[in-house]
Amino acid sequence: MSLIVQKYGGTSVGSIERIKNVAQRIAKWSRAGHQLVIVPSAMSGETNRLIGLAKDIQPVPDPRELDVVAATGEQVTIGLLAMALMQLGLKAKSYTGHQVRVLTDSAFTKARIIDIEERRIRADLQAGTIVLVAGFQGQDELGNITTLGRGGSDTSAVALAAALRADECLIYTDVDGVYTTDPRIVPEARRLTSITFEEMLELASLGSKVLQIRSVEFAGKYRVRLRVLSSLSDVDQPLAIEANSGTLITYEEDTKMEQAVISGIAFSRDEAKITLTRVPDRPGIAYQILGPIAEANLDVDMIIQNTSVDGTTDFSFTVHRNEYAKAMDVLDTKVKDHVGAQSLVGDPKICKVSVVGIGMRSHVGIASLTFRTLSEEGINIQMISTSEIKISVVVEDKYMELAVRALHKAFALEQAIA
Amino acid sequence: MSLIVQKYGGTSVGSIERIKNVAQRIAKWSRAGHQLVIVPSAMSGETNRLIGLAKDIQPVPDPRELDVVAATGEQVTIGLLAMALMQLGLKAKSYTGHQVRVLTDSAFTKARIIDIEERRIRADLQAGTIVLVAGFQGQDELGNITTLGRGGSDTSAVALAAALRADECLIYTDVDGVYTTDPRIVPEARRLTSITFEEMLELASLGSKVLQIRSVEFAGKYRVRLRVLSSLSDVDQPLAIEANSGTLITYEEDTKMEQAVISGIAFSRDEAKITLTRVPDRPGIAYQILGPIAEANLDVDMIIQNTSVDGTTDFSFTVHRNEYAKAMDVLDTKVKDHVGAQSLVGDPKICKVSVVGIGMRSHVGIASLTFRTLSEEGINIQMISTSEIKISVVVEDKYMELAVRALHKAFALEQAIA
Repeated sequence: MSLIVQKYGGTSVGSIERIKNVAQRIAKWSRAGHQLVIVPSAMSGETNRLIGLAKDIQPVPDPRELDVVAATGEQVTIGLLAMALMQLGLKAKSYTGHQVRVLTDSAFTKARIIDIEERRIRADLQAGTIVLVAGFQGQDELGNITTLGRGGSDTSAVALAAALRADECLIYTDVDGVYTTDPRIVPEARRLTSITFEEMLELASLGSKVLQIRSVEFAGKYRVRLRVLSSLSDVDQPLAIEANSGTLITYEEDTKMEQAVISGIAFSRDEAKITLTRVPDRPGIAYQILGPIAEANLDVDMIIQNTSVDGTTDFSFTVHRNEYAKAMDVLDTKVKDHVGAQSLVGDPKICKVSVVGIGMRSHVGIASLTFRTLSEEGINIQMISTSEIKISVVVEDKYMELAVRALHKAFALEQAIA
Repeated sequence: MSLIVQKYGGTSVGSIERIKNVAQRIAKWSRAGHQLVIVPSAMSGETNRLIGLAKDIQPVPDPRELDVVAATGEQVTIGLLAMALMQLGLKAKSYTGHQVRVLTDSAFTKARIIDIEERRIRADLQAGTIVLVAGFQGQDELGNITTLGRGGSDTSAVALAAALRADECLIYTDVDGVYTTDPRIVPEARRLTSITFEEMLELASLGSKVLQIRSVEFAGKYRVRLRVLSSLSDVDQPLAIEANSGTLITYEEDTKMEQAVISGIAFSRDEAKITLTRVPDRPGIAYQILGPIAEANLDVDMIIQNTSVDGTTDFSFTVHRNEYAKAMDVLDTKVKDHVGAQSLVGDPKICKVSVVGIGMRSHVGIASLTFRTLSEEGINIQMISTSEIKISVVVEDKYMELAVRALHKAFALEQAIA
């Protein structure tokens, strides 16, 4: 008997019929003797509907009140799914974030989980009850309702798995695993049977929208065995097959002796780049530039600063395209003159393409193959950033698909490992 | 400066435009310097939508989980209304039932309020913030989400007014007050400018659907000054006029020196009558009959037992028509033979018509005029029940409108008090 946490995405619970279907899937696990904690998202479209109502009233909704409204989507689903399980003759009980409770900080609309109480859940599991916990939501120290941001239910599930020391955390979604890249762009893209947390982090943060990045960080930190699998597969397939389907995300590098050098090509079109030119190069300059950006609650992705020439340096970074205007405004009014930059320039029409693979650590030549491939396609590289297991380039956004396809082919990702 | 609790019904907040309209109405009160606690219902149709989803999954939804689902409707409205108020430049903050907290018993779907904490609300009011509290919902001692049953937001508002010792509780609804009877049946029906709690209790319980009866009981018990008024009136009308519109429900009988003998004709079509015939008349028989009915959570309305003849008596009562089948089943399986009744007979095709008025106490002849009026219309009276301030009769349901019109005319209710 294992303790399993299962998360079901919005599409998986998007209608009454699908909720009943999910209940049957859960029943299969329950009847095999597993203890189950289920984290459903809101029914697909519901969170957008709620946020739409809010924006119709207040174009920039108050974050605290937006969370009050948005948190209702998951609350509806836990109740409905509990009923569906009871209808199948199972014991089930639902909890909202504040009932569990899931304690978060007070960063409304993008709160972070601090702690999860396990007392009630543990008692219910021991009584043979399937526990449903509303994803995406929590409560701060003052009792305010908070939400975790888009995809937050993934994080809820992983955090619950960590708190309960679950044997595995299954993320049921509408794709059947993690691919070498988006099959809509590269039809030859191949599903990975396993991938390391580090690779998944790079792939998730760079645009493979299978999992919320924070959930992967959480899973890595607390060593939660995480699996992404399809909620659309035949519910009657044997449990043993289902339990090994999808993509396993693991910290066990040694299980991947046959690992390919590169595991995938990630990309993100929702990026914008911003550069402050000729900034006097003195200690603390990065903080003086990015401090006000952080205070404005803007997330920064790539940051690049090259060696200074003549005592000045060009400082660049990328932000989400939706936050480009705000970031430019912050820099223009609070930073540019303060740090003595010559000019502030930005470009929202860029994209980022990344080559990711844990095998990169021990192989030379990955960077040169990447740059050569793009060069042969006539794609100009605007920025480069590397880590131990990835190489990211910023290019003009119209070249995104071309760059991804060319790199996927260059690294022979369509071929399974022998 | 007064402390005012205002409740807005589902129709009043049924769309984005109406929510904005309600916000303007609240702003008018706020700018006049009043402290305000606002209790909105769910957007009209929303509670039915949620219950519909639940029933699609579980024909008889689990009550605890149904409350989890149903409570979300009001949670959405408080958030949206708070945003609408902020959009008008006002300070506003919302609270769910568990955040306040509104402590109730654990009778899911029909919970009763035990206590309301006033600490947070009081602090916000003193800081000049308009407080929004989700109606219809609370939390039991164990932290489970509860709801108060249909119309429960009225009770939430009155309970808040009592806890905060508010100067007045305004129930904004889609009618402009309490009428002598339903104007759809009697076009000459007249709006009452004031009415006592006792009269309102009889009118509410008997089918004038303006206010949830429990809210009136609550208001009477805690001496909350209660006013029913229209949320559809011109939002730009002067506050002094709006504040005196509608119908005031008061415990101050002495303000009603000009009180008519009869204040209204109430009615209910959703009734069914049940009779156990020839029950041996011994102590405890009423309890033996109604105990199992109460255990089955069925509400009983009229109860009639006449003097026994030959040591047996006929015991009759009425229930809501929706609960008729269940009540008959309970009596048939658990009661009839146990108490030694000769037979069990029922009729779901009846209605109740009541003449209500506090002036009845000091006037003879009300009963005889009632019976004569029905007799002249050829309407047979099946059951009679009286209290100090009302006379109720059960008649065949097809006569309901005729009976109401005839009685309204007989007591000259279309004429205002001179």
